[in-house]
Amino acid sequence: MGNKEKGSNAERELIHAFWAKQWTACRVAGSGSMKYPSPDIIANRQGINLAIECKATNSKYQYLEKREVEELVAYAQIAGARPLVAVRFFRKEWRFLNPEDLSDSGKNLSVTQELSESKGITFEELIKL
Amino acid sequence: MGNKEKGSNAERELIHAFWAKQWTACRVAGSGSMKYPSPDIIANRQGINLAIECKATNSKYQYLEKREVEELVAYAQIAGARPLVAVRFFRKEWRFLNPEDLSDSGKNLSVTQELSESKGITFEELIKL
Repeated sequence: MGNKEKGSNAERELIHAFWAKQWTACRVAGSGSMKYPSPDIIANRQGINLAIECKATNSKYQYLEKREVEELVAYAQIAGARPLVAVRFFRKEWRFLNPEDLSDSGKNLSVTQELSESKGITFEELIKL
Repeated sequence: MGNKEKGSNAERELIHAFWAKQWTACRVAGSGSMKYPSPDIIANRQGINLAIECKATNSKYQYLEKREVEELVAYAQIAGARPLVAVRFFRKEWRFLNPEDLSDSGKNLSVTQELSESKGITFEELIKL
């Protein structure tokens, strides 16, 4: 399974999880011709607005481009949303991290499974916020 | 230009208009495999959340399926968003209507240009709310 397909499956999985808990969740259409910053998923419940960048990996590290995360944060600031990076490692559950909790290796941002578990919250914790 | 293409162009046009006024606006990815209700566009600014169904027409009437509008309202209730139907008639500006202001012809909902102008607000009015 390619990275793109894996990404789409991961997004769908999260969207189902939100709806199952009476949240709305929408996949944002690929930026393509539009050049505006946008998250992968927008999830809402009664005035709570989450802007989520969504990654699933079979590796030990998940890398994110700085530009990608900066755009997530920029989007969230204008929208009044909370920016979150959702990461799922192989056979582990989703963890939701604040952008500032990612490791900055200079060129990229990254997260290990260990970091995701020490800094990230679970889905169950997230939806109780 | 087909209805589908016209619809996409109309959505893009509205998205540009929101970003130009320091709102975020995202096109929601086609429901396709996901069966959850969702609007065409989600527009946000600092805690304001708009769920928009978007229509442009060269006809005198714009019809909407009842199911389509019911889903918009259902989505908005869960999300804590304001549901709006955006309609643009040929060479006219966008008008934003509350779902309950559409005409109910029994089978469908509809809006004429006259109704859009008497009940709907303009984009400039909308973004000042």
